Amino acid sequence: MTTTVSTRVDEVFDAIAAADRPEVFVTLRPRAEVAADHARSLAQGGPLSGMILAVKDNVDVAGLPTTAACPGYAYTPDADAPAVAALRAAGAVVIGKTNLDQFATGLVGTRSPYGAVRDSRRPDHISGGSSSGSAVAVALGFADLAIGTDTAGSGRIPAALQGIVGIKPTVGAISTVGVVPACADYDTVTIFARTLDSADAAMTAMAAAAGPSLFAADTPLAAPENPVIAVPADLPELDEAWRAAFAEAVARVEAAGMTVRRIDLTPFLAAAKLLYDDALVAQRYDAVGDFIASHADDASGAGLDPTVTAIVSAADRFSAVDLLRARRRLAALRDEAMANWGDATALLVPTAPFHPTIAAVRADPVGVNSRMGTYTNFCNLLDLCGLAIPAGRVPPRWSTADAVVESAYPDPAPSSPPRWSSADEPLGESVYRDLVPDNSAQFGVTLVGRALHDGVLIDLARRISGAGTPAPSWVEAVAPTVELAVFGAHMRGGVLAHELANRGARWNGEVTTSSSYRLVALDTVPPKPGLIRDPAGGRAIHGERWTLSPAALGSFLAALPEPMMLGKVELSDGTWATGFGCAADAGAAGSELDRDRW
Amino acid sequence: MTTTVSTRVDEVFDAIAAADRPEVFVTLRPRAEVAADHARSLAQGGPLSGMILAVKDNVDVAGLPTTAACPGYAYTPDADAPAVAALRAAGAVVIGKTNLDQFATGLVGTRSPYGAVRDSRRPDHISGGSSSGSAVAVALGFADLAIGTDTAGSGRIPAALQGIVGIKPTVGAISTVGVVPACADYDTVTIFARTLDSADAAMTAMAAAAGPSLFAADTPLAAPENPVIAVPADLPELDEAWRAAFAEAVARVEAAGMTVRRIDLTPFLAAAKLLYDDALVAQRYDAVGDFIASHADDASGAGLDPTVTAIVSAADRFSAVDLLRARRRLAALRDEAMANWGDATALLVPTAPFHPTIAAVRADPVGVNSRMGTYTNFCNLLDLCGLAIPAGRVPPRWSTADAVVESAYPDPAPSSPPRWSSADEPLGESVYRDLVPDNSAQFGVTLVGRALHDGVLIDLARRISGAGTPAPSWVEAVAPTVELAVFGAHMRGGVLAHELANRGARWNGEVTTSSSYRLVALDTVPPKPGLIRDPAGGRAIHGERWTLSPAALGSFLAALPEPMMLGKVELSDGTWATGFGCAADAGAAGSELDRDRW
Repeated sequence: MTTTVSTRVDEVFDAIAAADRPEVFVTLRPRAEVAADHARSLAQGGPLSGMILAVKDNVDVAGLPTTAACPGYAYTPDADAPAVAALRAAGAVVIGKTNLDQFATGLVGTRSPYGAVRDSRRPDHISGGSSSGSAVAVALGFADLAIGTDTAGSGRIPAALQGIVGIKPTVGAISTVGVVPACADYDTVTIFARTLDSADAAMTAMAAAAGPSLFAADTPLAAPENPVIAVPADLPELDEAWRAAFAEAVARVEAAGMTVRRIDLTPFLAAAKLLYDDALVAQRYDAVGDFIASHADDASGAGLDPTVTAIVSAADRFSAVDLLRARRRLAALRDEAMANWGDATALLVPTAPFHPTIAAVRADPVGVNSRMGTYTNFCNLLDLCGLAIPAGRVPPRWSTADAVVESAYPDPAPSSPPRWSSADEPLGESVYRDLVPDNSAQFGVTLVGRALHDGVLIDLARRISGAGTPAPSWVEAVAPTVELAVFGAHMRGGVLAHELANRGARWNGEVTTSSSYRLVALDTVPPKPGLIRDPAGGRAIHGERWTLSPAALGSFLAALPEPMMLGKVELSDGTWATGFGCAADAGAAGSELDRDRW
Repeated sequence: MTTTVSTRVDEVFDAIAAADRPEVFVTLRPRAEVAADHARSLAQGGPLSGMILAVKDNVDVAGLPTTAACPGYAYTPDADAPAVAALRAAGAVVIGKTNLDQFATGLVGTRSPYGAVRDSRRPDHISGGSSSGSAVAVALGFADLAIGTDTAGSGRIPAALQGIVGIKPTVGAISTVGVVPACADYDTVTIFARTLDSADAAMTAMAAAAGPSLFAADTPLAAPENPVIAVPADLPELDEAWRAAFAEAVARVEAAGMTVRRIDLTPFLAAAKLLYDDALVAQRYDAVGDFIASHADDASGAGLDPTVTAIVSAADRFSAVDLLRARRRLAALRDEAMANWGDATALLVPTAPFHPTIAAVRADPVGVNSRMGTYTNFCNLLDLCGLAIPAGRVPPRWSTADAVVESAYPDPAPSSPPRWSSADEPLGESVYRDLVPDNSAQFGVTLVGRALHDGVLIDLARRISGAGTPAPSWVEAVAPTVELAVFGAHMRGGVLAHELANRGARWNGEVTTSSSYRLVALDTVPPKPGLIRDPAGGRAIHGERWTLSPAALGSFLAALPEPMMLGKVELSDGTWATGFGCAADAGAAGSELDRDRW
């Protein structure tokens, strides 16, 4: 075991040393300490046992300074933030604290006195931010998991540009205690990982530790049978080169059997503008404005970033009435936006609209940043959740967002077409392909869902990527759930499975009854199979287990026609599960069936 | 029918003319118009057919001016507010618009250029406000129902002082479109009536018209089997005379079989102070501040009340950051308050702490008003709902809140002890006793509930007042509900009824199956009765119908032990209801039972 420990930790530290990326970590823990923690983690086990965790430096790790990328702001907390503590308790090993756009104000990754974080593959391009170091650490293999935060896109933009997965949960789902606020009402803790499964495992650990659940008694756990995916009718700001990639992503959704519906994104984009252009920005002053004001005389001594300082300082000018009116405008825009959304299952958007160079950002730090948030800024403001996933690479000659790209990167040899993780490369494991920089630009998309529909997004991503089997998401670690054993026509692929799927139920594997049951043909039109317990002379019947919300089970039962009934069914392992049966008189009259699938 | 029409409308108009209370209505519709509407209402029917409705003059009625008690602010809307439209559609007949504390800013009823509204029984005392005219109109029989609004207690304080019922729903449950805002985020539309049943009927009509429901899939419809009622450990500001009345109310709760638990109200009272003393008051500037500022040069010409003008004008001084910090303090206080609340079913508080004279208010308009809101201000801020109910009269010699009372009203002859509507005078019909002013002071209490627990409060009030049979509340007009037919031990009074009651289910009457069932003794410990369908040779079985949320049904099913099952049961009227059965093998083995109650 000791060998394994040192091998893995040495691998990571060697990679960090070889990469010459000093800007990624603000604080890197000593190799020996990490190795010791890693050994302990492997010995203790746990769902994240041995996984290396990087933590954005606006989130507290006990004993390490929290700088929020401002040296003058730094403090050293005594305790881990609950999100960090949960990951550590599940086995994750903290390797260090990562760089960010100062005070998490930015989507570019350049706004830090610890250095602009460079793209993992094209070092003169930006990493994206504000969770810049966390995303690059994961992309370059310096960590398996990283904590980010997201208010306007900080957990999604860098995921897209670095070709990794970013989960931005519904606001409030994960504790923000021990996190330096950016806009306290809209901040979320996020997870980066190279695979969806790893990201989900980390979210599971964080969510389970979150205490009283936000998730309602009717929280959907999976997408309906025939999802409708809204996509923007227009794609403002999107790089010409990435239009084909987005079209490919949309085609991929359709190929997965989902319906694509074009909607007007105007009210979403208008809401996004409120975040910086109106009184909502006062939240940033609330968070760190007093600190900045008190260091105005020695801004560079405190390590204040001039762009961040300008943004936050200007946020002091709004009155309480301004803020109330901005919130009212936001509420009206939300009504409009959700009317456009209609009954769509989710919204699919490009994550970042283009991938600029560091030089381009330095030339226009506010303008480029603002355009970067086109498809992310509205999300938290409108109480939506998001899942950022890689959707292939685009040759850089297509990346015409700024002239610098063209000159710095002449056309490469004929390159692969834009692609999204395909079915034979399931999204879960395919997105991290190599550590060798190349000249292509990563393209990413975000699935956006209604508040508390986080599990729906993960299910959609798995279905789009061709993952064969529905799997639990982190939502099931916190949402109230119950289970139902079904037989016959309610099984997956059966004619009545939609009654479960369309209530947000998730298929959860196969079950077999004890050998005390019979399946009989009921006198219904069409004839349905009915499960009857017969301890004297039955057989084992094949069925399925579904997981669903209590409200979905109640509504399913209320709609169930006679003579079907629900109660307890004995399974082959001797446990009793809530499941199907039928009225005694109907069962007694039916002729016995010898097949289980209907 | 014409006779009935003119009799009722004439009665009301004659009462208004005889009462010499010109300050109650800002606008009284012509008798002939009201009579015509009344005749039409009786002809058309509807749940509120023929009921006379007064509308607070900050709520739009098409064609009548909305003044918000400020003549200069008046406008004449083309459309009814949705709340008004809903009541009219259900049959209510608008008689006029009622006086209020200007811009709904006040709890006293004196802040109006249309005159201070006088108490219905002791005219030198205040009516309470801000829904002053609405409450007095109902108390004096000028209307059967009245619409009020409530931000800090405006729908509860005047209900208490006028001895009537006031329902203040969860914020957001009823549309506030067409209502002049006071504090837009915390405003609610309320209902006054002389009986709980009338008030609930009006709420039902308003809620049903409210569109997409706020009410969650696990909304409780009734109180649990053994409610725990929290009461304040200390009673600050409460009139000495009313302490005995409150103790009597608490004793009444205990006599109804509920558990009383004393809790520390400190964080509730601290939250209340934020409404006027901190940046939250900027909401009032947001609402009408620009109007007031633009009429500063001719405040009296515009009819501006000087106290209201001073409060609103001062609310301009707060910054956006001040507001964010006030909201954060509020959130922290809410956490503290709800920790003190714990698992209590509801909180019982005095509604108004004392009943001052108009002279006392004139002497200290802000101070008296502020103390008046001790037990009401916190409610909407903490997202709680409230139900204000009368709790008896107290001889005025006990009303020592201000010296004016003592001198104006010498001790009367020996008077009745404080009392709350007793079991033989059900609250539903007993609270409106006479129109003859007397010298006693009304005392009222408020049941306070968690957001969306509005139906729990109504159930508690009915149980405390000794109403024999659970009845539906307005919540069932909007919350998602399902029904369950139960037999045997789950029937009311049965040993398992708590499994339904403690999930917020409401008993909803008796049912009888078709004559195709048998009840058999199951092989369980203790033996449970199982319902088996037997079209050939059964009998009609007596059971009960319960109404519950879909989540409660799902959770109930998930916890149900074998061999009990739920499916469809045929009732004596030929309909099929979701209800109990049992596994076929268990039913077949059981011996037949000849009684239905267990």
